[in-house]
Amino acid sequence: MNKKTCYLSIDKTCEFLKLNNNYLIVTHSSPDGDTLGSGFALKFILKQLNKKAKVICFDEIPQKYSYFTEPNEDFKEQTVITVDVADLNLTSGLESSLKNKVNLAIDHHKSNTEFAENLLLEENSASCCEIILKIAEHLNVKINGKTADALYTGVCTDTGCFKFSNTTADTFYAAAKLKTLGANTEKINRLMFETKTKQQLKIEQMALDTAEYFFNDKCMMIFITEEMIAKAGCKQNELDAVSSVPRTVEGVLVGVTIKQKGPEEFKISVRTHEPYDASKICGILNGGGHIRAAGCTVNGNLEFAKKQILSAVERVIGV
Amino acid sequence: MNKKTCYLSIDKTCEFLKLNNNYLIVTHSSPDGDTLGSGFALKFILKQLNKKAKVICFDEIPQKYSYFTEPNEDFKEQTVITVDVADLNLTSGLESSLKNKVNLAIDHHKSNTEFAENLLLEENSASCCEIILKIAEHLNVKINGKTADALYTGVCTDTGCFKFSNTTADTFYAAAKLKTLGANTEKINRLMFETKTKQQLKIEQMALDTAEYFFNDKCMMIFITEEMIAKAGCKQNELDAVSSVPRTVEGVLVGVTIKQKGPEEFKISVRTHEPYDASKICGILNGGGHIRAAGCTVNGNLEFAKKQILSAVERVIGV
Repeated sequence: MNKKTCYLSIDKTCEFLKLNNNYLIVTHSSPDGDTLGSGFALKFILKQLNKKAKVICFDEIPQKYSYFTEPNEDFKEQTVITVDVADLNLTSGLESSLKNKVNLAIDHHKSNTEFAENLLLEENSASCCEIILKIAEHLNVKINGKTADALYTGVCTDTGCFKFSNTTADTFYAAAKLKTLGANTEKINRLMFETKTKQQLKIEQMALDTAEYFFNDKCMMIFITEEMIAKAGCKQNELDAVSSVPRTVEGVLVGVTIKQKGPEEFKISVRTHEPYDASKICGILNGGGHIRAAGCTVNGNLEFAKKQILSAVERVIGV
Repeated sequence: MNKKTCYLSIDKTCEFLKLNNNYLIVTHSSPDGDTLGSGFALKFILKQLNKKAKVICFDEIPQKYSYFTEPNEDFKEQTVITVDVADLNLTSGLESSLKNKVNLAIDHHKSNTEFAENLLLEENSASCCEIILKIAEHLNVKINGKTADALYTGVCTDTGCFKFSNTTADTFYAAAKLKTLGANTEKINRLMFETKTKQQLKIEQMALDTAEYFFNDKCMMIFITEEMIAKAGCKQNELDAVSSVPRTVEGVLVGVTIKQKGPEEFKISVRTHEPYDASKICGILNGGGHIRAAGCTVNGNLEFAKKQILSAVERVIGV
């Protein structure tokens, strides 16, 4: 982008929202609780300001968020806002039509690539929904139960139910306020964290059957092949939760999950505890991510993928 | 008890604490994060008031709480306080020596049996630690990081990391304050909720291999035999977490876990979702518990235990 992005405060963002109209709110693809919660809550807030707004996503919105999503009305959009989108390429097939057309990005990713004309970036917010809540408070808009549900969904999912290191006192304050506003935290936590399909349970079991321990049991590795996925009757997007299991075993500081994506392609997820840096391990194999959760891809057969990642783990933990 | 228990407000409780000295703080047996967190935090608060205090428990204090527990100094106790103790028989072997000697009980159980001379009962508090925090605030005692850790431990464990229905806005406010005071929420959540032993992982897998579905998949049943426990190398007290698994499967409203306790003895845990009452199901087999979690014992062989509990489930869900 040639024009320089203008960084907005909450205050200036509220002015922007009051000034414009006919909003198109864009969420990222493979939508999660935070981008959708932010999108639909912002839509509600804009409606309270007597503005028109619709929420779109390149991918289909998963059924499990139906307690706060709703259909769009039809109007011609004039103002484009992205929520929880760090880079325009994360909107997938919408990218080309959005290029140089995003008027405002609201985000909490330090890595935001400044693709929008205006940017409200609060990188210390654990979720984008925390920022949207601040906007609602600043605008003095009364939030209803459904919107509180939407915002709480982002607050809890982006923090792994308050377990991740991004959780701050403000995160808990946001949850407290949303609970007071009527968020059904019990139902949402259950839906988001305690519901798996029979197929997910099956594939998790099959994956755990492959468990191997390395480096004095500091590293646990499991794998999932295409054959196993077919046998369990699972979809690729149902495999995410498995990756968090190895790290939960007592004494394991590096949890490795290898998932087959194609005949000769393996996606590897690495989750760590202190003092090990998952992004450093994956970086060795040209991947990346965060300090506690990162990923990389290895081409070759399963044995080759295992060898590659184990040697990367070894280099970082220095056995 | 003959004398009537006097109900105290937070204010009066603080007066009591300032007035007396040489405290013996009693936690319940099979100690959990809330009773221990309350006990050690209260000890710290009393020390700030220049009082002597020690914390005792009939059972050994599990190693996993060592980040906030500490040894007692030696002095002759004059004032006895129980924390998170609903009935004196929950102090096990200490019961007889404590009878008619408890000067103050601080509790959040509606079922408190009024065994103490004075009682601070806040039954809407999700944890006893929430009440101790209120006391500290009321006394204007500055809480250090270790005490914040102790209190946060009770706040998060008694709510299943904010997932149970007892979680209120005040729970989140308490967590926010404790985070600000330096509670290491990431470490504590990991220790309390995300750490299982290899043996626990193994027994969970073996139990899931026994999964059967009944009544249009509304009921899922798993079992654990003594043979499986021996094979996994597990202890009986490592089996608790397994019981929560069946209810987490999509569509399952009644989760049943059967655990062998002896050659002809099976302990059955039932976990439900709306609209089914677990205590009603277990009540049919002379057990009991809460609406979402209950238990009962069946004598006989495994097949008999299965038949008995399935017929009780059928009677309640009315297939």
